[in-house]
Amino acid sequence: MTNKKEIFAGIIVIGNEILSGRTQDTNTSTLSIWLNSLGIKVQEVRTIPDSEKIIIDTVNELRKKYNYVFTTGGIGPTHDDITASSISKAFNLKYGPHKEAMALLEKYYKPGEFNEGRQKMAWMPTTADLIYNPTSGAPGFNVENVFCLPGVPSILKSMLAGIINKLIGGEPIISQTINLRTVESEISEPLSKVQYDNKDVDIGSYPFFRAGRLGVAIVLRSTEQNKIDKCNLEIIKFIKKKNIDIVEKD
Amino acid sequence: MTNKKEIFAGIIVIGNEILSGRTQDTNTSTLSIWLNSLGIKVQEVRTIPDSEKIIIDTVNELRKKYNYVFTTGGIGPTHDDITASSISKAFNLKYGPHKEAMALLEKYYKPGEFNEGRQKMAWMPTTADLIYNPTSGAPGFNVENVFCLPGVPSILKSMLAGIINKLIGGEPIISQTINLRTVESEISEPLSKVQYDNKDVDIGSYPFFRAGRLGVAIVLRSTEQNKIDKCNLEIIKFIKKKNIDIVEKD
Repeated sequence: MTNKKEIFAGIIVIGNEILSGRTQDTNTSTLSIWLNSLGIKVQEVRTIPDSEKIIIDTVNELRKKYNYVFTTGGIGPTHDDITASSISKAFNLKYGPHKEAMALLEKYYKPGEFNEGRQKMAWMPTTADLIYNPTSGAPGFNVENVFCLPGVPSILKSMLAGIINKLIGGEPIISQTINLRTVESEISEPLSKVQYDNKDVDIGSYPFFRAGRLGVAIVLRSTEQNKIDKCNLEIIKFIKKKNIDIVEKD
Repeated sequence: MTNKKEIFAGIIVIGNEILSGRTQDTNTSTLSIWLNSLGIKVQEVRTIPDSEKIIIDTVNELRKKYNYVFTTGGIGPTHDDITASSISKAFNLKYGPHKEAMALLEKYYKPGEFNEGRQKMAWMPTTADLIYNPTSGAPGFNVENVFCLPGVPSILKSMLAGIINKLIGGEPIISQTINLRTVESEISEPLSKVQYDNKDVDIGSYPFFRAGRLGVAIVLRSTEQNKIDKCNLEIIKFIKKKNIDIVEKD
């Protein structure tokens, strides 16, 4: 929509436990908010099973489609952790013990504790760049534009700071929310008009129920504050005319 | 893995608010658990923006790939609700006021309240089957194997009972969890062996942190209880040998 270069990312959530509903994914939201702050827009999320073929195909499809791809999950020490070996195959790279990761984990564990299971966490594409893990030792890694992170949310969060220097962001996306005491069908017509007149701003409308009362959150998103301000004024104008109250929420 | 027919589903989560991280998706987990109970396995989830072309392409790809496809979001009355019109295009069906939906909503609202915005919620492929909404009136719909549900979690949940009769399930998937006081790297080797010897059972291993202590949840999933029991015994055997405690968690 704007002339400035937009930077897009895809996220691949790897894990049967998410698809079975056993585990609620929260990493998507963590990654999206963080990437947005860097001016990188998440365009697609795919949640896929622990299946080598599906991981390879999905990684190879998305890494061509987006500037960056982030995978979560499947880099632990057990048999169902197949992300690292699958990524090696996706890039036709040798899968084996990564020298720096081995040295790092050997130092992390007490003598004698660096067993075969733990060593597996250092197996990855041998030429990958490491992503350091300040929480629990075992690193993530990236190959070209694909960044592989663990599935445990607290560990994933702690590793993001270590990636920032590897990413080139775009214009940060500014977002502004107006919460209204109304229902969507009351404002859909004038809001459509505002969107029509302001194609550069992404206007979203989201109903909410809080404290037993209905409301609608209107979210304005753009890389340019003055465009958001213009939309905001137009919205204020029609809600005044309709006697709709603005409420606090977020 | 088994000889019985497996039934697969894909979920398409439609909405910029999920991709921006503003809203945490919980519908995937709701749908997956419910579908599992009907013997339908969710094989893939795609989260995509409110973009007509992307919705059409994704629906057309997944409806051929899986027995059932469920979409969430984008069926409200505002300009960013474009699921119904996009589905019409995906199936080359006429998009317009659905007779039964119009009658239903006209009855739902007080006289004079059925305004243009509300009428939009009755616009969909005119030949679609309705999915009734006991919470807030506006129905979802299905065309062939594609079921379109709203994004608001409480409303989505209330509509599931109305779909059961339209789905043909498979063998229900039985799941059993063993929670251990250990770390994954201690059990990865013997657990790999159990998985190797029991290819019909899907064995997952998930680290957890609770009350300041580490643990691992081993999840056994199969359509056959006796196969789960066999795995369970083999796991109990090796954890006894290793002096690992079983703990309560779920």
